[in-house]
Amino acid sequence: MTSAAPRIKVGIVGGTGYTGVELLRLLSQHPNAQLTAITSRKEDGMPVADMFPNLRGRVDLRFQTPETAGLEQCDVVFFATPHGVAMSQAQNLLQHGVRIIDLAADFRLQDTQVFQQWYKMPHACPDILKQSVYGLVELNRQKIAGAQVVGNPGCYPTTMLLGLAPLLEGGRKLVDTTHIIADCKSGVSGAGRKAEVSTLFSEASDNFKAYGVAGHRHHPEVAEQLQILAGQPVGLTFVPHLVPMIRGMFSTIYARILPEALDTDFQALYEQRYGTEEFVDVMPAGSLPETRSVRASNHLRIALHRPGGGDQLVILVAQDNLVKGASGQAVQNMNLMFGLPESAGLTQVAVLP
Amino acid sequence: MTSAAPRIKVGIVGGTGYTGVELLRLLSQHPNAQLTAITSRKEDGMPVADMFPNLRGRVDLRFQTPETAGLEQCDVVFFATPHGVAMSQAQNLLQHGVRIIDLAADFRLQDTQVFQQWYKMPHACPDILKQSVYGLVELNRQKIAGAQVVGNPGCYPTTMLLGLAPLLEGGRKLVDTTHIIADCKSGVSGAGRKAEVSTLFSEASDNFKAYGVAGHRHHPEVAEQLQILAGQPVGLTFVPHLVPMIRGMFSTIYARILPEALDTDFQALYEQRYGTEEFVDVMPAGSLPETRSVRASNHLRIALHRPGGGDQLVILVAQDNLVKGASGQAVQNMNLMFGLPESAGLTQVAVLP
Amino acid sequence: MTSAAPRIKVGIVGGTGYTGVELLRLLSQHPNAQLTAITSRKEDGMPVADMFPNLRGRVDLRFQTPETAGLEQCDVVFFATPHGVAMSQAQNLLQHGVRIIDLAADFRLQDTQVFQQWYKMPHACPDILKQSVYGLVELNRQKIAGAQVVGNPGCYPTTMLLGLAPLLEGGRKLVDTTHIIADCKSGVSGAGRKAEVSTLFSEASDNFKAYGVAGHRHHPEVAEQLQILAGQPVGLTFVPHLVPMIRGMFSTIYARILPEALDTDFQALYEQRYGTEEFVDVMPAGSLPETRSVRASNHLRIALHRPGGGDQLVILVAQDNLVKGASGQAVQNMNLMFGLPESAGLTQVAVLP
Amino acid sequence: MTSAAPRIKVGIVGGTGYTGVELLRLLSQHPNAQLTAITSRKEDGMPVADMFPNLRGRVDLRFQTPETAGLEQCDVVFFATPHGVAMSQAQNLLQHGVRIIDLAADFRLQDTQVFQQWYKMPHACPDILKQSVYGLVELNRQKIAGAQVVGNPGCYPTTMLLGLAPLLEGGRKLVDTTHIIADCKSGVSGAGRKAEVSTLFSEASDNFKAYGVAGHRHHPEVAEQLQILAGQPVGLTFVPHLVPMIRGMFSTIYARILPEALDTDFQALYEQRYGTEEFVDVMPAGSLPETRSVRASNHLRIALHRPGGGDQLVILVAQDNLVKGASGQAVQNMNLMFGLPESAGLTQVAVLP
Repeated sequence: MTSAAPRIKVGIVGGTGYTGVELLRLLSQHPNAQLTAITSRKEDGMPVADMFPNLRGRVDLRFQTPETAGLEQCDVVFFATPHGVAMSQAQNLLQHGVRIIDLAADFRLQDTQVFQQWYKMPHACPDILKQSVYGLVELNRQKIAGAQVVGNPGCYPTTMLLGLAPLLEGGRKLVDTTHIIADCKSGVSGAGRKAEVSTLFSEASDNFKAYGVAGHRHHPEVAEQLQILAGQPVGLTFVPHLVPMIRGMFSTIYARILPEALDTDFQALYEQRYGTEEFVDVMPAGSLPETRSVRASNHLRIALHRPGGGDQLVILVAQDNLVKGASGQAVQNMNLMFGLPESAGLTQVAVLP
Repeated sequence: MTSAAPRIKVGIVGGTGYTGVELLRLLSQHPNAQLTAITSRKEDGMPVADMFPNLRGRVDLRFQTPETAGLEQCDVVFFATPHGVAMSQAQNLLQHGVRIIDLAADFRLQDTQVFQQWYKMPHACPDILKQSVYGLVELNRQKIAGAQVVGNPGCYPTTMLLGLAPLLEGGRKLVDTTHIIADCKSGVSGAGRKAEVSTLFSEASDNFKAYGVAGHRHHPEVAEQLQILAGQPVGLTFVPHLVPMIRGMFSTIYARILPEALDTDFQALYEQRYGTEEFVDVMPAGSLPETRSVRASNHLRIALHRPGGGDQLVILVAQDNLVKGASGQAVQNMNLMFGLPESAGLTQVAVLP
Repeated sequence: MTSAAPRIKVGIVGGTGYTGVELLRLLSQHPNAQLTAITSRKEDGMPVADMFPNLRGRVDLRFQTPETAGLEQCDVVFFATPHGVAMSQAQNLLQHGVRIIDLAADFRLQDTQVFQQWYKMPHACPDILKQSVYGLVELNRQKIAGAQVVGNPGCYPTTMLLGLAPLLEGGRKLVDTTHIIADCKSGVSGAGRKAEVSTLFSEASDNFKAYGVAGHRHHPEVAEQLQILAGQPVGLTFVPHLVPMIRGMFSTIYARILPEALDTDFQALYEQRYGTEEFVDVMPAGSLPETRSVRASNHLRIALHRPGGGDQLVILVAQDNLVKGASGQAVQNMNLMFGLPESAGLTQVAVLP
Repeated sequence: MTSAAPRIKVGIVGGTGYTGVELLRLLSQHPNAQLTAITSRKEDGMPVADMFPNLRGRVDLRFQTPETAGLEQCDVVFFATPHGVAMSQAQNLLQHGVRIIDLAADFRLQDTQVFQQWYKMPHACPDILKQSVYGLVELNRQKIAGAQVVGNPGCYPTTMLLGLAPLLEGGRKLVDTTHIIADCKSGVSGAGRKAEVSTLFSEASDNFKAYGVAGHRHHPEVAEQLQILAGQPVGLTFVPHLVPMIRGMFSTIYARILPEALDTDFQALYEQRYGTEEFVDVMPAGSLPETRSVRASNHLRIALHRPGGGDQLVILVAQDNLVKGASGQAVQNMNLMFGLPESAGLTQVAVLP
C-alpha cells in the first residue's frame, strides 16, 4: 500500500446489511479506495463501527442521509440496498459522472417484464438498464471495463454460471441443455440481516431444508445468462437449500453428457477456460472443494466428477456467498472499471479454521 | 399410558413461542393431560402443527382467540405469554376454578415495587400475587401442591437457586454471602422466538458475548428467593452470557467458604439435600456436567469443585433452559398441583448426541 | 407402560457409537424391552452412563466383554458394530434361538461379490445372508415379521428408497429410470463417533462439502434394492454431502417424468402408498420439510415438487439419520419381529427447537 | 507491500496444527516475511496447501523433515509444536544466529520445577530459558525487542494478564488480590487439530461445559506473570469452559474493589494504560465486546463493568484465540524482534458476520 496510489472516492448506499459490512471490510483495506460516504436514512448519525463492531478503530464513517452524503462527488457508488433503490437514484448519479455498482437486482435482468414479474415493480430506468453490464467478470471482462453501470450478479447465479460456462460457450454441444440440475446450498447470511423468525439461530441452527423450490428470483437471472452463453434457452432445475453456517455457498450441478461428447476431456476444458483467472480455481480432477477453503476470500473453486466414468457430469462449485458471491465481486468490478489490478484489495487468504 | 388414567384438561395461552411449543411437546406425551385449547389472537385458526412442524400428526389443535377457546372449562391454564398477560386474566380464571401456571414473571416477585421497576407496569392483582407460590418444586414442594396460582421460575434463577440452596438453607453459615458470583451461560432459545437481529443465526453463531451485565430481570427474582433461603440479603453478582447453541444453560457459581466452614463436606451436604429428588442429579465430586447431557429432559445436574482444595467453592449447574428452566418445570408443578406422580410426562431420556 | 407387558430381553453388541447410544435411549424407554447386556471389549466394566451422560440415572448397565455378556440368553441382539462383526457371531446366536438385527452392512447386500468389493472382506456366512431380510419396514413388512436376521438399512438408502418406491413399484413406467439423481445431505453424526480430524468441530463446523462422489458404500445397497423395486436396473447418481449439524438427513431426488406419465397425480400416488404408514409422512404438495421437524423421532417426511409444472419431479425427503435412518428403524424392526405394535417405544415427539 | 522491503526468512517447525495454519495465513500476507521452510516429519513432501485448502494458490511450500529444511539459514523459527520440541532444538538454532518464537510452553514458565510438574518432563535448557522473554508485547515490549528466544503466551493467559495488568502494575492496591476469579470461555480450535472424540462436531456442537476445573496448565503460567505484575502472589481461581464456536475466547474476570479504592476511575485507568496500544481496545464503559468482533484479527477488546455501582469489578475480555491468543501475537513478537512496525502483516479487519 503506497501513499502515491490514486484513491477512488467510494460511496455506499444502504450499508446496514451483510453485503454492506463486507464492502466496508474489503474497501477499508483496499490500497486504491477511499471510503467517503455511507448512507442509511434510518441510522443517520450512527458510527458504522457501532453497528459492525469488527470495524472499530478501522472505519470512522458515520451513516448519513442520502441528501447530506454528497454521493455526487464520489467516483463510484455501491448500492447495498433492497431491490428498487439503485434504479431510482441511477439517473442523478450518472449525470454527475458517478459510476454505479448495484448489488441488488435492478441491473441484472435485461427483460423488464421478467423483472416486474419477480420484483413486483416496474423498472424505473430501462434506458440505463440497456447500457448496464452484467458484472460477472470472468464472462464479461471487456464490457465491465467500459461500463458506467454494473449489475452485480446474485450469489447463486455466480456459482451456476461459472460452473456451466465452459460447457455452453461457443455453441459447444457437450451436454443435454434441456435438463440441467443445480442443487445449491447457501449459508444463512445469504438471507440478509433482516429480523425474521425463519433465520433466527434457534430456527436455522442444527437444521437443513430446501426453500424456494417452486421458484426463486435467481432463476430468471441465471436463465437469461445461460441463454446468452449457449445461444439458446437452457432448461435448468434450480433448488436452493439453507445450510446452518454463516458464510459459504456450494452448488452441485448435474449435466448429462451427450453421446457424441463422451470422449471430451472436461478437466482440460475447464482448466483451459479458467487457466488465467485469478479468482477461479479449477481443482485437480476428483477434488472435493469445501466452502471453508474460501471463507472471507474472493476465490471460487470448481471440481469435476464423472461417477463411474459414465455420462453424468457432476460439477462442484464453492464460494463465499458474501465475497465472490456479492461484495468481493463488486470490488473486482470496481477494479476493472477503474483500470486497477483486478485483485487490488482482494488478496486476503481465506480464514481456516 | 392407560386409558383409565384421569385426564387433566389443559389450556395454553399464547403458545407461539419456544416455551409454548415445548409445553405442547411435553403435554402431548403426558399420560394424564388432555390438550384442550391453545390461544393466539394473531394466529387464530392456524393449526399449531403448521407453526411447529415437529407436532405434525401428533397435535391436532388450532390456535383460537382467548374469547372462543373456553379456557374457563380447563382444569389448568399455562401462560406462555409476555409479562403482564397472566395477571390480567387470572381473576376470571380463578373464579371458574381454573388453576394457573404462569411461565412469565407476573407471579415470581412478591415485591410489587420491584416488579414495577423491572417490568414497567404496575401489578394488576397484588392479592392474587400474595397467595401465589414460587414454583421451584425442590424448594416449595408443599406449597405448590396446594396452590391455585404458580409463578414458574425463570431459567437462570432455577440454576442459581438449586445450585446455592444447600449452602444457605436453615441459617447455615458456610460461605461468604456478601459476594457470591454467578457466571451464567444460556443457549439462544432463551431469547425467545422473536424476530430480532441480535439472535439471527448470522449474528449469534460462532460468537460469544456477555449481556445484561448492568442489570437483568432475573436478578431481583433470585435476590428475593435467596433472601428467603438465607433469612437475610445475599450479595450476588450475576453475569449472563449467550452461547451459540439452541438449548442449554450452564451456571458457574463461585462462593468463598468461610474460615470456620473449611472442613465441611460439601459433597455430602448436596447429596443429602437432593438425594430423593428425581430431577436434581448431584454428580460425583469433580464431575464435569455438560448441557447436552440434559438436552430435552427435565434433569438438572450439579457438580462441586474446590480447586486446589482451597476456600473457593465452584458449583457447576447444567439444565435445559426450555425444560427444567421453563416448560418441564411447569409440567412438574402441574403434576404436584393435581396429585400426580411428579415425573408424569417427564420421563424422556435426554437426546445425545 | 404396564408392568404386565411382556419384556423382550435385548442385547447390544458394540454400543460405544452413536447408533449404540441411540438404541440405548430408545430401548430404555421401550415398554416391552428389557436391556440385558451391552458389550465392548475395550470398555469392559465401564458403566454406559459414564460414556453417555444422558443415560445417567436411566441405564444402569455396564459394558461387558462378549464372552461374559450372556448374549445367548437374549431374545434379540442388535449389532451396533463395524462391518464384519455381526456375520462372525451370527451362527452362534442363531443356534441359541437369538434373533439378530445388524445396523452395519453385513446383511444388507445379497450380492456377496459386491459386498467383498466395497467392504474388503469375504462374507462369512452366505447361507445366513440368504435367509436374512432387508429391514426397511415399509417395503418388507411381511418378511421382517418372520425374519431371524435383519439387515438394517443404511441411512442414505432409507431416504432414497422411500422417496422413490411409489414411482418404481409394480412395474410402473412413470419416470426415466436411467438417470435418477439423489443429492443427499447428512449431519455429522452419520460419520460416527470415531476420533478423526475431518469430523472435528473446528473442521466440520461452518463448512459444507460433498464427499464420496467417486463412490459410496450405500450406492450398491440402494442399487440392489431399486432393482428389486423396479424389476430392472435403475441408473442412479448419488452424491452425499456433509452438513454442519449433529443429526438430520435430507435427500433431494430428481426424476424426469416420462412423456406418457405427465398427467400422473404424483401427490395422490404417494399419499395412497404411504397413507397407512405411521412413520412416513407425505406432506401436502409443495411443502418444505425440515430435518429439525423429525429430530430425535422416527418419522420421515416426504414432499413432492414439480417446478414450473414441467417434467422434472423433485422429491424432498427428511429424516433423523440416527433414528429412522438407524436405531429407530432397528427398533421398528424388532417390534415387527416380536409381534409388538410397530410404534412401541417410538412415540416420542420430535424435539424442536 | 513494496518490493524493496527487507524480507525476513521464516521457518516453521510443525505446522500441521491450527496455530501452524494461522501462522501461514498471516505470514504469507506479511510484507516483510518470506516463508522459507516448514517441517513435519510425518507429512514430509506434502504440499501444505493439500492439508490446508485455504492456502491453495497462496503458499507453495511443502512439508520437509527437520533435517532437510535448512532451518539454520532462517532468521527466525516459529515452533508450532507440542510442548518439549522447541527446547530440544533451541541450542542448535541459536548457535546459528536464528531467533526463536515458541508457541508452546517451553519458554513460558521460569520455574522449571513447576514446568516439570505440569508438563511431565524436565526442562532441557534452563540456561536458554533464563534468557528467554515472555512474549506478551503489551507488558514486555522492551525485552522482546532484544530477545533471542520468546515464549509466546498461552491464549487464556493473554486475556487474563491484559485484563488485570492495569489493576496490579506498579504496586497498586485497588482490588483484593487474594481472590480474583477468571471465568474463561474458549472456542474449540483451542483444543488443537488432534483427532479426539471429545472435540468431534457431534460432541462439542450444541453443548457447553467446563473443563480442567481441578487444574489447567495455563494456571501456573498466569500465576507466575501475575506475581511479577503485582510484586506478590495473586490468588486466582481460573475456570475454563468450551464454547461451540471455532474461534474466539472470552474471559469474564471478577475482582473485588478494596474499600479504599472505591473512588477509582477504572475506565480512565485502563484507557490510559492501553491508550497507545494498537491491538488492545478499551471500549467505552458498559460496552459488551463480542468474540466475532475480533474474528481472524489480532485485536483484543476490554470492557469494564461495575454492576450496581458496587465493589465488584467485572472485566470482559475478548480475543481470537488463534490470533492475539497465539499466532498473531507470535507475529507481533517477530515484528518487535526485527525492528518492524508492530502491526506489519496484522492489519486485517476482523471478519463479521
